[in-house]
Amino acid sequence: MILLDGRKTSSDLKLEIAEEVNRMKSSGQNIPHLAAVLVGEDGASLTYVGSKVRSCQQVGFQSTLIHLPDNISEAELLKEVARLNADKDIDGYIVQLPLPKHIDENKILMAIDPLKDVDGFHPSNFGKMALEMDTFIPATPFGILELLERYNVETKGKHVVVVGRSHIVGRPMSILLSRKGNPGNATVTLTHSNTKNLSSLTNQADIIVMALGIPKFLKANMVKEGVVIIDVGITRVPSNESPKGYEIVGDVDFEHVAPKCSYITPVPGGVGPMTIAMLLKNTLLACKRNQN
Amino acid sequence: MILLDGRKTSSDLKLEIAEEVNRMKSSGQNIPHLAAVLVGEDGASLTYVGSKVRSCQQVGFQSTLIHLPDNISEAELLKEVARLNADKDIDGYIVQLPLPKHIDENKILMAIDPLKDVDGFHPSNFGKMALEMDTFIPATPFGILELLERYNVETKGKHVVVVGRSHIVGRPMSILLSRKGNPGNATVTLTHSNTKNLSSLTNQADIIVMALGIPKFLKANMVKEGVVIIDVGITRVPSNESPKGYEIVGDVDFEHVAPKCSYITPVPGGVGPMTIAMLLKNTLLACKRNQN
Repeated sequence: MILLDGRKTSSDLKLEIAEEVNRMKSSGQNIPHLAAVLVGEDGASLTYVGSKVRSCQQVGFQSTLIHLPDNISEAELLKEVARLNADKDIDGYIVQLPLPKHIDENKILMAIDPLKDVDGFHPSNFGKMALEMDTFIPATPFGILELLERYNVETKGKHVVVVGRSHIVGRPMSILLSRKGNPGNATVTLTHSNTKNLSSLTNQADIIVMALGIPKFLKANMVKEGVVIIDVGITRVPSNESPKGYEIVGDVDFEHVAPKCSYITPVPGGVGPMTIAMLLKNTLLACKRNQN
Repeated sequence: MILLDGRKTSSDLKLEIAEEVNRMKSSGQNIPHLAAVLVGEDGASLTYVGSKVRSCQQVGFQSTLIHLPDNISEAELLKEVARLNADKDIDGYIVQLPLPKHIDENKILMAIDPLKDVDGFHPSNFGKMALEMDTFIPATPFGILELLERYNVETKGKHVVVVGRSHIVGRPMSILLSRKGNPGNATVTLTHSNTKNLSSLTNQADIIVMALGIPKFLKANMVKEGVVIIDVGITRVPSNESPKGYEIVGDVDFEHVAPKCSYITPVPGGVGPMTIAMLLKNTLLACKRNQN
């Protein structure tokens, strides 16, 4: 069993990006600039955005945090988005979700310039992805592709079962792995809450992508020997053993499932760290596109 | 075994649309106007476009056929597209594919105003479809959903196997049937040329969508009793028995497979007639959106 080490891979990636930024600097090019819009004081969102800004500093990107009050109106937030679209200094930006309930997330999403949408959530970018055109790939799925590629995990002709059909993980993964190219060319089954006999499907799978959000859902009797498992679940479970009072648990009963796997991502330290690295990569791509 | 009769269903639909057009007329509203751009003299394209224009007349739509010479430049065609985007009299339009080789189809596609893209091929509309937002659904998949709905074929929790991953049928079908809603909520496996053990998958399927383009590919031993089959294949096969010198054959070995089915679409007379009806429906939707 080989661990797909997201921590190490994302470090490698960040180093590569930092080198690239140095090259850009020394040849007099603009360096990538990522902006992050954060509305309100949600604890998890503060952590995520803080971590994104720190990662920008690690690789030498410029970054701007735009922290707006919880009670900002939809119209004011749309104005902020329009300002970011027009700002030539900013290569890409993200609007951290979730937004307060009085704001229509889809409306904000649709207002983001697709060329600056480094999260890859704009329908135009999502459609291009599905139609195999060049575009930004959402960071978490992009990170999974990168892990599979760097560990030379073959996907062509393999049967992949994706569990969970969220717009940010399950759906795009099901599309990406069944596209032409590498990683890709897999036979993909997308499963969800209405799926019957899930374990009969996971038992056939060569590769399983868990993106359900139910801790330790996937048990050893649900998978075959030699399976590759990508665990996207990250649930906080109360724990007395951790100084924080909780631990992060994936969708896989790791202790019992891992011995049957050829490859598996740990949680934490698997898919999670890859996500920020790929956001940086998308921002680098946006910046390069803007230089031309 | 029940035939999913596309001819009858599309006639029903056209009658409903014609009634709606009459209501719109008598209440003084604009009636729907579809334009079709045809480049060159490709025989099949001439037939398709001619049939679309005739269908417009049947339901009382206005229609405009823009027939351009084979040697039109990409720039000139883009100008025509810009003109159609700006023309307030036209609710929706299609650019008949394929285009001559010196023209970049993606470039033309991207230039179409998504609000007039009644084919639903623009990445922005395709992305909205995948993200479960309101949009134009491509006509052939939309027609299949309509057939399933009108015949009350349950899809929720069913295992659907889609064979073929084209951008106009296989890919969108795999997305649509796994979305929330009805028809939808199915477990969907998307298969293609790299799939191994295809018949082991089709043998598990409750519903099979064949969109491969290989005549009589699906044999009786590849399906289980009671399966629902949607056959999107339409291949011309030389035939002495037909006065035309050819017959239209689907991807299913109908004679031997049909007796095992609970429902099956015939070819011709199944999915084919639905496609034009749904193009009309999309144009009606575009027109209604423009009245508001």
